[in-house]
This record gives sequence, C-alpha cells and structure tokens, in this order.
Amino acid sequence: MNYGGKISGEMQKSIDACIESYSCCEQAIAHCLKQGGQYVDMMMMGPLMDCVDVARACADMIMRQSPQALEMSATCARVADMCAEACTTMNSDPVMKRCAGICRTCAEACRSLAGVRA
Amino acid sequence: MNYGGKISGEMQKSIDACIESYSCCEQAIAHCLKQGGQYVDMMMMGPLMDCVDVARACADMIMRQSPQALEMSATCARVADMCAEACTTMNSDPVMKRCAGICRTCAEACRSLAGVRA
Amino acid sequence: MNYGGKISGEMQKSIDACIESYSCCEQAIAHCLKQGGQYVDMMMMGPLMDCVDVARACADMIMRQSPQALEMSATCARVADMCAEACTTMNSDPVMKRCAGICRTCAEACRSLAGVRA
Amino acid sequence: MNYGGKISGEMQKSIDACIESYSCCEQAIAHCLKQGGQYVDMMMMGPLMDCVDVARACADMIMRQSPQALEMSATCARVADMCAEACTTMNSDPVMKRCAGICRTCAEACRSLAGVRA
Repeated sequence: MNYGGKISGEMQKSIDACIESYSCCEQAIAHCLKQGGQYVDMMMMGPLMDCVDVARACADMIMRQSPQALEMSATCARVADMCAEACTTMNSDPVMKRCAGICRTCAEACRSLAGVRA
Repeated sequence: MNYGGKISGEMQKSIDACIESYSCCEQAIAHCLKQGGQYVDMMMMGPLMDCVDVARACADMIMRQSPQALEMSATCARVADMCAEACTTMNSDPVMKRCAGICRTCAEACRSLAGVRA
Repeated sequence: MNYGGKISGEMQKSIDACIESYSCCEQAIAHCLKQGGQYVDMMMMGPLMDCVDVARACADMIMRQSPQALEMSATCARVADMCAEACTTMNSDPVMKRCAGICRTCAEACRSLAGVRA
Repeated sequence: MNYGGKISGEMQKSIDACIESYSCCEQAIAHCLKQGGQYVDMMMMGPLMDCVDVARACADMIMRQSPQALEMSATCARVADMCAEACTTMNSDPVMKRCAGICRTCAEACRSLAGVRA
C-alpha cells in the first residue's frame, strides 16, 4: 500500500470491522466500569483498551493506505483475538458476549488483509 | 446525568449518531487528502477534524453519563452542523454529500438530547 | 477565533496545559487499573476518562482555532476541575496527587482563555 | 510484558518520547493546514497522521504493559522514522524541523525498547 491509492473491497471490510470493534469495545469499557468487581480487572480492561487504541489506529491507517497499514492489521488481529478471548470469559453477560463476536470478526478481517495465519 | 446511571433510548440514539458521524468524518478526511486542492482547505478540514474530536468525546461521555455530557452534546450539535455546512459546499461529491447528511443527523440527535434549540 | 489565525501566548499556554493534563490522566488511568479496588471506581475512572477526552479535543481545537474552541475551553475547565477533585481524594498516592495538580493548572488556563469565572 | 507489571526506566523513556512525538505531530498538522500548498500533500499529512495514531496507541500500550506493546513499539519506530523523513523535506520551516527531531528521538527510543535494528 501507499498513501492515496484506491480502497479495495477487502480493505473497506477491514475498516468497517475495525470501526465496529473499537466503538463496541468503548461501550464495553463504560459497561465494565458500571459493573465494577471482576469487570474492572486489568485482565479485562487491558485487552478492551488495547483493542480500542489499535483498531482505531488500524482503521485510520487503512483509510489512508499507510505503508504500515498491513503490519498494523496483523497486530490488530492479535489484539482483537485477545480481547475476544477476555470478553468470552464473561459470556453470560450479553454486552460482553456481543463484544466478543464483533472482535472475533474484526480479527478475521484484519488477519485476512494482512495475509497472516492465525 | 451522573456516572453509572442507565442509558436511555434517547442517549443511545445520540451515541450511535456520534459514532457514525466521527467515523464518517474520518473517512472524509482521508478522502479529502487524496483529492487535494480545495478539499484540503482549512475551512473544509477544520470542521471535519473538529467533528471527529467532539463527536468521539461526546459519544464516550454519554456512554459514561458524565455530568458534562449534556453541555458536550450542545457543543457537538454546533460542531456537527458546521461540518455538515462545510460538506454541503462539495455536494456534487457523493462522499461529502453522504457525510453532510450523517453530520446533520448527529446534530439533531445531540441538540435534542441537550434540550437546546437550533 | 477562526480557523487558521495566529496562536497567541495565552492560547499556547492552554494547549500545553491540556496536553500535559491528558497525558497525565492517561498515565493515571493505567496506574488505577493496576491498583484496583477503589481506584477503579466509576467516580475515579469517569472523571479521568472525561479529562483525557475533553483535554485532547480542546488542545486540538485551540491549535486549529476552531470557532468552538472557547466553549470547549469552558467545558474543559469544568471537567479538569472535577478530575482534580477526584484525584485529591487519593492525595496520599503521589501519582494521583501529581495528577490533581496538573489538572488544576489545566482548569485555570482553560478558564482564563474562555473568560469565565470559576 | 504483561498487564500490570512495573514500568522500567526504559519503558518510561519510550512513553515520554511517544507522547512528545504525537503532541508535536498534532501541532504540525494544524500548522500544515494553515500553510496549505505542499504542506497538505498526502505525502506530508499521511506520515504525520500515522505518527499521531501509532505513537498515541504505543504510549498507552506501554503504560498498560500490553502483551502487544513491543510489536507496537517496532511499528512506532518505523512510522516515526518515516514521519521524521517527511518533515525533513521542509527543514527550512522551524516547526517542521523541530518535529523531525522529536520523531527521530521517538523512533530511537521505540526501536531500542522493541530490541530491533534500524
């Protein structure tokens, strides 16, 4: 990729998945803070915050077609997978379960774009 | 509002409108940078960047039910209106036209939540 | 203010104070998550997160001289004051005490720029 | 690294360098938009925006000691180097020259933390 090129369908899919992922993780963070207890454990909040930061940066970089967009996608896939795993441990809470699913989809789209294996 | 309360339907509507608005403005910024010329004029980029910053902060603050969420909504309504106006000057470009519409919707949702008149 | 004007000394002071405030609050959030317990209470994390969001948006808007920069400064002054108050409740922790002081300075700079009284 | 560990002196150095880098690039973006012309070319704005996004995410991830912080540091080193190079092409402008220097320092700190060669 290089700045200013055309956005392919596969790139747009990753952009959309990243945006959905970070806005969903942001809502999950607000939800966790309201719940307290194990919800605000670093092992839960850490992956959610990483996923917000990385998915947002990744979406922006693919939009701009940054030369570093693909390595960011590979990182984003790993971060979103970790976040999905953390959310899955609270599967009985529908907010967290939904967030796990969205992060999983984001990880798949980014992994496919980056061309790396799981 | 105060931290940790329940999110009403009207609040959720504003959250969704803000998220749609800032992700759409981010894509419009990338689009403008590709086009160059009048697209990268400060009178176009300024409102788009303001709208990204304010709509994102506003969405997060409503999610958390910050005591300052309503005054932020009032500011967001003004910023999104200004951004819609700027985008409308490039109405023949479908990316900018779509962005104008989404920002207008965001402005209405935030104004209604803040309880202020246009 | 209007986009593209010259940045005065008073504006630069607010920009610097906002940047110091949001980066300090971000470090405080990471610190709180490590500590757990009352540190991750919504009444502590909420003001810190608000302050990150608003101070960042405010700094960016003053840099650009957004027409909404002054109302954002007024909001930022209130948010930073609230954050300083929350941090002060943990005054025996040097990280939180330092953060309170930096947020207080940010509130003063923004209030002075916005031309509002405390 | 893993969430919640202690922040070493080397990590703190990278955190500080990333924060200085992204706040300096944000000011450079506002400056470029005011100048217009070649300043708003995608080859100038793209690296500046990438550097804001990546340096911010990187600083936050090191603060939290995210398991992905080191790979983010490696990416940040590359992005900050690219940004420094872009800024250097406008070396006669003191804002851009200063930004080049700060990004270079950030790249070095992140590269050293990530343990990779230039």
